[in-house]
Amino acid sequence: MTATWGSNIKLTIFGESHGEAIGIVIDNIEAGQSIDLDYIYSEMMRRKPGKDGMSTQRNEDDKPRIISGVFNGVTTGAPICVVIDNNDKRSRDYSLTKDIARPGHADYTARVKYKGFNDYRGGGHFSGRLTAPIVFVGALAKSILKKRGIRIYSHIKCLNNVEEMSFSEFVKKNMGTSDITKDKLISSYNELLSHLTSMDIPVLEESNIGKIKDKIEDVKQRGDSIGGSIECCIVGIDSGYGSPFFNSIESSISSLMFSVPGVKGIEFGKGFGFTKILGSEANDEFKIDSDGNVLTNTNNNGGINGGISNSMPIEFTVALKPTSSIFIPQKSINMETMENISLNLKGRHDPTIVLRAIPVIESMAAISILDFISGR
Amino acid sequence: MTATWGSNIKLTIFGESHGEAIGIVIDNIEAGQSIDLDYIYSEMMRRKPGKDGMSTQRNEDDKPRIISGVFNGVTTGAPICVVIDNNDKRSRDYSLTKDIARPGHADYTARVKYKGFNDYRGGGHFSGRLTAPIVFVGALAKSILKKRGIRIYSHIKCLNNVEEMSFSEFVKKNMGTSDITKDKLISSYNELLSHLTSMDIPVLEESNIGKIKDKIEDVKQRGDSIGGSIECCIVGIDSGYGSPFFNSIESSISSLMFSVPGVKGIEFGKGFGFTKILGSEANDEFKIDSDGNVLTNTNNNGGINGGISNSMPIEFTVALKPTSSIFIPQKSINMETMENISLNLKGRHDPTIVLRAIPVIESMAAISILDFISGR
Amino acid sequence: MTATWGSNIKLTIFGESHGEAIGIVIDNIEAGQSIDLDYIYSEMMRRKPGKDGMSTQRNEDDKPRIISGVFNGVTTGAPICVVIDNNDKRSRDYSLTKDIARPGHADYTARVKYKGFNDYRGGGHFSGRLTAPIVFVGALAKSILKKRGIRIYSHIKCLNNVEEMSFSEFVKKNMGTSDITKDKLISSYNELLSHLTSMDIPVLEESNIGKIKDKIEDVKQRGDSIGGSIECCIVGIDSGYGSPFFNSIESSISSLMFSVPGVKGIEFGKGFGFTKILGSEANDEFKIDSDGNVLTNTNNNGGINGGISNSMPIEFTVALKPTSSIFIPQKSINMETMENISLNLKGRHDPTIVLRAIPVIESMAAISILDFISGR
Amino acid sequence: MTATWGSNIKLTIFGESHGEAIGIVIDNIEAGQSIDLDYIYSEMMRRKPGKDGMSTQRNEDDKPRIISGVFNGVTTGAPICVVIDNNDKRSRDYSLTKDIARPGHADYTARVKYKGFNDYRGGGHFSGRLTAPIVFVGALAKSILKKRGIRIYSHIKCLNNVEEMSFSEFVKKNMGTSDITKDKLISSYNELLSHLTSMDIPVLEESNIGKIKDKIEDVKQRGDSIGGSIECCIVGIDSGYGSPFFNSIESSISSLMFSVPGVKGIEFGKGFGFTKILGSEANDEFKIDSDGNVLTNTNNNGGINGGISNSMPIEFTVALKPTSSIFIPQKSINMETMENISLNLKGRHDPTIVLRAIPVIESMAAISILDFISGR
Repeated sequence: MTATWGSNIKLTIFGESHGEAIGIVIDNIEAGQSIDLDYIYSEMMRRKPGKDGMSTQRNEDDKPRIISGVFNGVTTGAPICVVIDNNDKRSRDYSLTKDIARPGHADYTARVKYKGFNDYRGGGHFSGRLTAPIVFVGALAKSILKKRGIRIYSHIKCLNNVEEMSFSEFVKKNMGTSDITKDKLISSYNELLSHLTSMDIPVLEESNIGKIKDKIEDVKQRGDSIGGSIECCIVGIDSGYGSPFFNSIESSISSLMFSVPGVKGIEFGKGFGFTKILGSEANDEFKIDSDGNVLTNTNNNGGINGGISNSMPIEFTVALKPTSSIFIPQKSINMETMENISLNLKGRHDPTIVLRAIPVIESMAAISILDFISGR
Repeated sequence: MTATWGSNIKLTIFGESHGEAIGIVIDNIEAGQSIDLDYIYSEMMRRKPGKDGMSTQRNEDDKPRIISGVFNGVTTGAPICVVIDNNDKRSRDYSLTKDIARPGHADYTARVKYKGFNDYRGGGHFSGRLTAPIVFVGALAKSILKKRGIRIYSHIKCLNNVEEMSFSEFVKKNMGTSDITKDKLISSYNELLSHLTSMDIPVLEESNIGKIKDKIEDVKQRGDSIGGSIECCIVGIDSGYGSPFFNSIESSISSLMFSVPGVKGIEFGKGFGFTKILGSEANDEFKIDSDGNVLTNTNNNGGINGGISNSMPIEFTVALKPTSSIFIPQKSINMETMENISLNLKGRHDPTIVLRAIPVIESMAAISILDFISGR
Repeated sequence: MTATWGSNIKLTIFGESHGEAIGIVIDNIEAGQSIDLDYIYSEMMRRKPGKDGMSTQRNEDDKPRIISGVFNGVTTGAPICVVIDNNDKRSRDYSLTKDIARPGHADYTARVKYKGFNDYRGGGHFSGRLTAPIVFVGALAKSILKKRGIRIYSHIKCLNNVEEMSFSEFVKKNMGTSDITKDKLISSYNELLSHLTSMDIPVLEESNIGKIKDKIEDVKQRGDSIGGSIECCIVGIDSGYGSPFFNSIESSISSLMFSVPGVKGIEFGKGFGFTKILGSEANDEFKIDSDGNVLTNTNNNGGINGGISNSMPIEFTVALKPTSSIFIPQKSINMETMENISLNLKGRHDPTIVLRAIPVIESMAAISILDFISGR
Repeated sequence: MTATWGSNIKLTIFGESHGEAIGIVIDNIEAGQSIDLDYIYSEMMRRKPGKDGMSTQRNEDDKPRIISGVFNGVTTGAPICVVIDNNDKRSRDYSLTKDIARPGHADYTARVKYKGFNDYRGGGHFSGRLTAPIVFVGALAKSILKKRGIRIYSHIKCLNNVEEMSFSEFVKKNMGTSDITKDKLISSYNELLSHLTSMDIPVLEESNIGKIKDKIEDVKQRGDSIGGSIECCIVGIDSGYGSPFFNSIESSISSLMFSVPGVKGIEFGKGFGFTKILGSEANDEFKIDSDGNVLTNTNNNGGINGGISNSMPIEFTVALKPTSSIFIPQKSINMETMENISLNLKGRHDPTIVLRAIPVIESMAAISILDFISGR
């Protein structure tokens, strides 16, 4: 069981929150891909805390250093190693808290798995900070995919009591219904969704921004936290990627999503909604459009049939649990003395990880698709 | 992108619905494991059609033949190959339907991926029949896990309008609340759930059996189909299995579940329910019980923290879409002539795949856990 | 540690010498490849015993059955499973010999590794018979490579005291030296070597056939055995395949060759001869020929620089040890009673495995190259 | 085809000779292993140039920095990333030589594979410098193996005209022949060979040191280079590691050895010598010693039967070609202008890579064995 992923590309994430550095090695990226550092940094900024005045304010200097695999601004084809130094690790004393199992966190399971040798400081290898290098690779992947006409968007589908319609519904509602062709569908997705990328709080309905801010502020005041869900779509992918068994598109994407701290559910297309509808409602009827292209009238299957892309947008939603670190007394245990204790966490934490997770979710989606298109 | 799965064990599924045979090769099963063929057959019977009078009646002679890796009834440590001959493949003429893309099926995506060379008869490699060898391996895996005190149960969580409570709620309700210890919790799960395995329609509330039968019969009459969800739990696994990135318990299980035809969603513990609750409600508080064992008061995280098992039951739910084959007119396309057509399917199909999927879901869960415990 | 191999294609070998059957599953062969069964059988016949009147005479009915992945005589893209039934397994009593560790064989190591549960009959999973399915896949691989202009040849480089020159020397000697171009070089290899494939005893110098027959006959009379080496070349491969680390052409080929029973050494190009020459003699000077193609004046590096093919023929030699089964008294042990014993083997065995190994070596070479060209 | 290796542990090497840094990520090293930096540095010093006054004098500051996976001097179980900065990269102008294909080097093949985007400076990712991080990991692996009683030794088996006997012969000659037990054999290996590790020129016969120095000095004066071979043995490994197919001990070790620049051949035990002897001479007879342990009277199979360790020392020899960089005029090509040219290399290079390769070969052996013992 290792921390290495991928069939055609290979990823290994390394580092601990309060160690020397964190980083990632990615292998088998095709030679000759330009590295647009400005774009990569802009993506990494989407993940940074404090941006909306509500996330944690640790001054992470997430300046990535590319130490291999790039020459004259272009990928060489050799493994790319990216390192992000931990400049802001504070000399805080962890000796008091190192034996406490924080509820919802991996303190206990890490201690068992690693026999007590894990770096416990700030969550160590389990810290959400480890998602920063994922966003680096995700941005690189997105820029490669973009050259092939593939783009990735996401919005907050649900944040506690605030809910939005799905991409499918939104695009159907806004694109007009006369003579829908595949090309028109794809361009509608791109036109209607591309602004999401630059939004601090990406939603389909502007009015939800205020509601979300209020909700987060309210929860923050109470020292509590909330979860939510993110819908993500991959637009412009050709049909024929994926496999029926073990390397289905769903298998690949889900295996990556469940590597993002806090993700506890995923559904493709209608997902859990399928449990409530009939086959006659669920099936996506095929049609040949006026350009001679194949598309489906609905996209309940989220662009995937039998594990393989069908050229419709790949649409999925992930559920994230509320931030585990809350500032309300909790019961817990001391793993050293094996005593039950009362726990009162102090510090700084996002009341929700949904906002910061958005570029991470998109990055994982991009990595999955890059892996598929890097094979034959 | 290959049809081979696993870190410590390796699985490859092969075969087509109407070819010579279907089967599976499984490698790296520890030498010395007894093969209980009666038990394996009984598990395979759970997946067989027609059992409840409502599933498809094709007379599948799913008699598996072990052709390697077992000697004197015991695993040798060499790869195990199991073959199930396709005795009932009928000489039906597929030439009329081979170019039709059935909605919800993989006809179109398979044709693109395999450049038109796929065996289209009866769904070929995409047929639900390919899950039979999975149940074989699943049964073998279960019997190995059982010796380590690990058991797997499942019930129909939802079938269209029929819904059940979760395992967590059911056990909590029935086990009593005084002095809960980890051992007592595990034995309560086993006592309260073990009868599910022998139920044709495994539900927690007996009254749901009739409702489910009625619902299926009703849908069948209309030539339509329904979806549903299955909750599965893995009881008795120690803490410390899994990894934070890429080989989280959730990543492993989900990558397998999305290889089961029809699965479109998965959630662990509270899953999508996390989007509606507060961190103070979501966190599972740790405690040390009167035996000195660690457990959590709730199991919202489904037995997994940071991708690693915490010794609580691993609980997850998968969503299955309605059977794609329905007997109601649908629009579709002819992939050869590239014309829009009207489609009227005839034949025999389960109005829901939820019932037959149950042993498959359990098998995939067993395979995932066997893979984890086969490493260090 | 598993019996599955490959980066782009995946191979799993299964079966035991005296079990139900032996076979192989190969995954990720491109859809649309014709299966020429006559050619495949002819290749498998090259490996059959008894052909030269000197190999073992067990009547192996090595008729392979393709049970998946081929439809209408063409690969479907789904995993191909090939099964060869063990029809000739005799009801011999193995109870007397099952605890004897035959010198040179894997009886002892298999017993330790598999904790005594291995199928010991006829060598079980370690039997040379397991190379039959490799030749099946090798023949399929060769036919795919042939369409890309890649061919594979081999000859007996050394059999005890009979030695031959290398392919490089032979072609250089016979092709003429005026205006050597890459195309001319490739076609010279093909013209000068293609007859080897149909030779029972493939040698460059006809006079060696008699010497080899005599040597084998002589050794057979004495109940002893001999080893030898096989040189193999892969002609017509483009430059650019392979990697500097871990997936060098040499790494891939050698990892397969050391899966062939009896192989104990491999060298590429000059190989161990490099230890005796100067850099000024060893370096292959590059030149651009009159067609504008790049080639090297010599091929000491065996067509590989830095682990990557340079478009010259890939040339390597494998060393095989003498057949371990000899009919001369040997000392050994009883693994059950843990006593030293005297051993007198009886039965039928090739006095050398070199002849029968030739198509296996070529097959492994073809599989390696197919794996390389199946990626990007 | 990726730069990632391993079944149980996973290695990825990254970096270019004149880029920011080189390094390695190693995953799945068991938590709780002490890191002895002094020992690791001492091993890395064995690979450093200039030590014997004859190797290249580039002042490599190969100070490795551990940036993850180690906490309080002990492995955490999370991936270990080691970075060695390239402090000595000189601002030399490569524009003149970047299009020249140096004979014996990977300049041409890298350019083809990476479409001209490779970092060509100083060999880039193909530089021998990339072996420095391998020695880091090798030293870590050795220290883990040592705790399990496994040690690794090597000597110069052949350097052009200087040749030595094998370890087997040397130990047999020096250990005495009365009542050989397995324990005595292992301890004799350790006693007779342990001093090799601290020798600048590790040889079994002291008198060879002078001959080797003279030979190297002579070749250096002429601007030429020489090859040689290194014999390596792994002492103290238990029986039962390895597999018959694809993960044989030989397959694993050879796949790593052929990732070491310059290695062109490998043989296990007698290796190519098997081609000259009879089966009755080749077979290693088993015996049970006076302690009740199993050993073989000879070790012609190099400690491996059927791909699996038999508890005798694993013995193999690798052949290295002469250093490709020589200071004698050679013919070559300009890959940009596609013209034939004359080449006169200038600079500093080892006249042989054999000496510096020794700790690299040992490291790769250690990594292979660590991978085997890290599984079950």
